[in-house]
Amino acid sequence: MSNTDGHKAKKARTEDKYELLYWQGIPGRGEPIRLAFEEAGVSYEDSGNFTKLLTRNATKAGAAKLLNATHFAPPILRHGDVEISQLPNIMFYLGSKLKLAPEDEQGKFSVNQYFLTLADLQDETHDTHHPIAVMKYYEDQKDAALLRAEDFRENRVPLYLDHFEAVLKHNKASEHKWLVGEDLTYADLMLFHVVDGLKFAFPRFMEATLAKYENISSLYERVKERPHIAEYLASKRRHKFSNGLYRHYEELDAPDAEEKEEK
Amino acid sequence: MSNTDGHKAKKARTEDKYELLYWQGIPGRGEPIRLAFEEAGVSYEDSGNFTKLLTRNATKAGAAKLLNATHFAPPILRHGDVEISQLPNIMFYLGSKLKLAPEDEQGKFSVNQYFLTLADLQDETHDTHHPIAVMKYYEDQKDAALLRAEDFRENRVPLYLDHFEAVLKHNKASEHKWLVGEDLTYADLMLFHVVDGLKFAFPRFMEATLAKYENISSLYERVKERPHIAEYLASKRRHKFSNGLYRHYEELDAPDAEEKEEK
Repeated sequence: MSNTDGHKAKKARTEDKYELLYWQGIPGRGEPIRLAFEEAGVSYEDSGNFTKLLTRNATKAGAAKLLNATHFAPPILRHGDVEISQLPNIMFYLGSKLKLAPEDEQGKFSVNQYFLTLADLQDETHDTHHPIAVMKYYEDQKDAALLRAEDFRENRVPLYLDHFEAVLKHNKASEHKWLVGEDLTYADLMLFHVVDGLKFAFPRFMEATLAKYENISSLYERVKERPHIAEYLASKRRHKFSNGLYRHYEELDAPDAEEKEEK
Repeated sequence: MSNTDGHKAKKARTEDKYELLYWQGIPGRGEPIRLAFEEAGVSYEDSGNFTKLLTRNATKAGAAKLLNATHFAPPILRHGDVEISQLPNIMFYLGSKLKLAPEDEQGKFSVNQYFLTLADLQDETHDTHHPIAVMKYYEDQKDAALLRAEDFRENRVPLYLDHFEAVLKHNKASEHKWLVGEDLTYADLMLFHVVDGLKFAFPRFMEATLAKYENISSLYERVKERPHIAEYLASKRRHKFSNGLYRHYEELDAPDAEEKEEK
């Protein structure tokens, strides 16, 4: 159903509550959505009540089978009559509702583009600790994880960060503060989030790496200090990184200075 | 710049040519875009002229460094004043321009949702032959590839196909023919494309597997026989699968019946 026309629809939309259905207790793929709500100062329900939507059937060894006729996996967003899943899809939808994206075509699709690229980096971060099979333990794929993490640190992260540093350097409209246009968008929130996750997962590597990216580093601090974001990060609503998408395994991080010397 | 208002802008848009910038000679991530243009019967330029946009700097061993202030990687779409990259982003944009998606909010975002899930499956297909490092040879990561391909066949593909079979079964509006609403959308084109690529990469596995998915199998045949698509597939414009995203390595496919017996 289209909600895009007329005063009445607009009013109804403002009154419709936002409902996020996602695993509770972890940031995961729910976190960019939470950051968007928090930055916009919009109230939302954050619940794990998606079990009714997803029939979990773990008959196959090692595989949790999500079988549903509408959604492949959470996060799921409900808003009025609309119910959608897939993180970049939810963000595109919220970008216009929460005014966290420009309205013009080029701006709107540029924000979606950068968000998708950051989501790719996020997925690659996950695959450093699960390069073989998402449903198997890390310990059972550790050899491959060591190789993948090394390539990730040496080749993939620099490729992505070079790109986003260049985008910020190029964007004179915001004096290099934000990725697109003059104001903060949900792509900036995602850049903050991915850097935050990488700092948790690869602390030694990221400390050395971020020093090379002036614009990304200052965007990270700038988002962190936004009043609504700062209040959220200090609140109980914020879940700490633990053993979800972003994980810290000592051996996947860059070797420390001493180890490097010995090499 | 916004092109959304007024007759003049609309007319200009219709006259603007579509330009796809992508690697030539392979289907890759350009193919869903080509299929959309072909199905819509819209003329488009298909060129590899993106080298000026991407500064290729291969100083790091084994890594091609794409450094650009606007795009991370092709495919790139140019249309009038708009220039965007990221496959799902381009498809969302084209979905409304080429009338390959519903106009209502739920429909439009459901199509994007299913496309994104299929793009995830496509990315996972790529990772079966490159589970460790995208820039290294397959031969140098074959051990991990064998493990990842096995998990992909046994767990991941069934998870995705179960989902899409359920979506088709659920969609009474199209009599189970298409994923969303009454008509073909670009998500249906993508389902065709991913199945087509999987059939190339894992022929034995897919022959046995597709037999279990009645609605997906008939959607695949239905898309293949669309007049514009059939004409395209028989034309020189269609690039064959070879050593791109979808690759056939005998050893990554399911063991054949005899081998299975011996096991």
